[in-house]
Amino acid sequence: MSAIIIDGKKIAEQIKAELKSEFELLKNKGVTPGLAAVLVGDNPASHQYVNMKEKACRELGIYSEKVIKSKETSQTELLDLINSLNHRDDIHGILVQSPLPDHIDEGRAILQISPAKDVDGFHPINQGLMLAGRPRFLPATPSGIVELLWRSGYKPSGKHVVILGRGYLVGRPLAAMLALKTEKGNATVTVCHTGTPDIAFFTKQADILIAAIGKAKFVTANMVKPGAVVIDVGTNRIKDPTHPKGVRTVGDVDFENVKEVAGAISPVPGGVGPMTIAILLTNTLKAARKEFSYA
Amino acid sequence: MSAIIIDGKKIAEQIKAELKSEFELLKNKGVTPGLAAVLVGDNPASHQYVNMKEKACRELGIYSEKVIKSKETSQTELLDLINSLNHRDDIHGILVQSPLPDHIDEGRAILQISPAKDVDGFHPINQGLMLAGRPRFLPATPSGIVELLWRSGYKPSGKHVVILGRGYLVGRPLAAMLALKTEKGNATVTVCHTGTPDIAFFTKQADILIAAIGKAKFVTANMVKPGAVVIDVGTNRIKDPTHPKGVRTVGDVDFENVKEVAGAISPVPGGVGPMTIAILLTNTLKAARKEFSYA
Repeated sequence: MSAIIIDGKKIAEQIKAELKSEFELLKNKGVTPGLAAVLVGDNPASHQYVNMKEKACRELGIYSEKVIKSKETSQTELLDLINSLNHRDDIHGILVQSPLPDHIDEGRAILQISPAKDVDGFHPINQGLMLAGRPRFLPATPSGIVELLWRSGYKPSGKHVVILGRGYLVGRPLAAMLALKTEKGNATVTVCHTGTPDIAFFTKQADILIAAIGKAKFVTANMVKPGAVVIDVGTNRIKDPTHPKGVRTVGDVDFENVKEVAGAISPVPGGVGPMTIAILLTNTLKAARKEFSYA
Repeated sequence: MSAIIIDGKKIAEQIKAELKSEFELLKNKGVTPGLAAVLVGDNPASHQYVNMKEKACRELGIYSEKVIKSKETSQTELLDLINSLNHRDDIHGILVQSPLPDHIDEGRAILQISPAKDVDGFHPINQGLMLAGRPRFLPATPSGIVELLWRSGYKPSGKHVVILGRGYLVGRPLAAMLALKTEKGNATVTVCHTGTPDIAFFTKQADILIAAIGKAKFVTANMVKPGAVVIDVGTNRIKDPTHPKGVRTVGDVDFENVKEVAGAISPVPGGVGPMTIAILLTNTLKAARKEFSYA
């Protein structure tokens, strides 16, 4: 029996449709929401992500500005740039595309973003408020996963969620969000990672398995409990001579085989990716509305 | 076979002895560290905790100031009080004793504390920095538990840690700290709570079981894997007519029976409690040294 495919693209389109009328209300009040994306260096995947975000912005009538800096940009220059964006009235949201070159302290750069314009939800104060159960801007990918589960009817409450990966962008905030006593959380959560001796021991217990470990096809069919819900957060580029570009993107899950065991599964692409962008747009709406004060 | 007793009091004394010389160095530079504890209302347990903290401060030559406000104190009055403490040069650390009366928004009060004086480590920015793997002031109780495990030789790395409880003060930050890729972390972490249908299923898997659920003697012997390390964070007051005060404090663990199954166990009192105070003193030293800038 083949798993139900969780269509992240479709759910993201629903969210965007909901947002469209909200953005139009704002425009009628004379506010054009603005999002600035800062790119340092020439990582092709980063440029592709930012282009996708820009396209989504245009669809909703958000003013979108791409600021491209060379990979030699110094930390001071980057902090100054972020600071100038913090002070611009026409820019409501700022995102600094990860990864940054090695000579730049990424955590320091994120700290520089005004919390009120932190539409990626990575600023420590927004992460801390999330952890405190007083969420403002939620981190885009974890929040996208929570929304994907919720809107596709796979509610985590009372379930055992096993997360593979403990990164700052996904695993850590997601673990907190899913364990919180909220309508969309309330799960028993286990976090596994490279320091877990026998990952399969845990994955086989999962009612909901979320793979964010950054290894192509890491989750194999024998690691999955029959009927489990599997969410694939991976975006790994692998060589594929049959593909026009010579590479293609695969997730952290061996999709073809796992879908024969799982009850439901999100694909890559078309699963978590579009949801991340939908949350980014949701956060941009909140920022343009100036919903939160951090004074 | 009876478990090894993890002596938190003794380990806390070791930490205090290490801190003593550090505090003396500061004094030789003319700095008298100062800690203010704010108490609202007349919760006897809160008064007892603050008195214990004051006593520990005096031992190390820290100036300690107890600010007691009536339970009718308004939110605005409390925020103004915190603000005035933020601006005092002789006060390096501020703690607001939990719980606050119901009419006060505790999260808002914590946000008012200057992050640079947040020796309890509860301010969202300090929690967010912890989650980001850039720790400054670590939350006192979770950090005390990490230190208790480390110094008693029960290293969590590669082990399965099961945490009972998802509160803001212990469970949530502790889960993040123990899963992080650090020397004192690197554990596979499961968080259980009131929304977990079968808690014993998880506790029986735990190499290290940490109970912070706030229910007297909740963890019974049949819930514990033989040889496991059990850390009891609970401080529950139960009636006991044989006790001079008519009440006594017990943990979340049925100590007498669990110690026959566990490999090691921390008692209540004398386990986590003294460690919390030791970390509070550690944080007060860092605050008095002005180790961190949040500008």
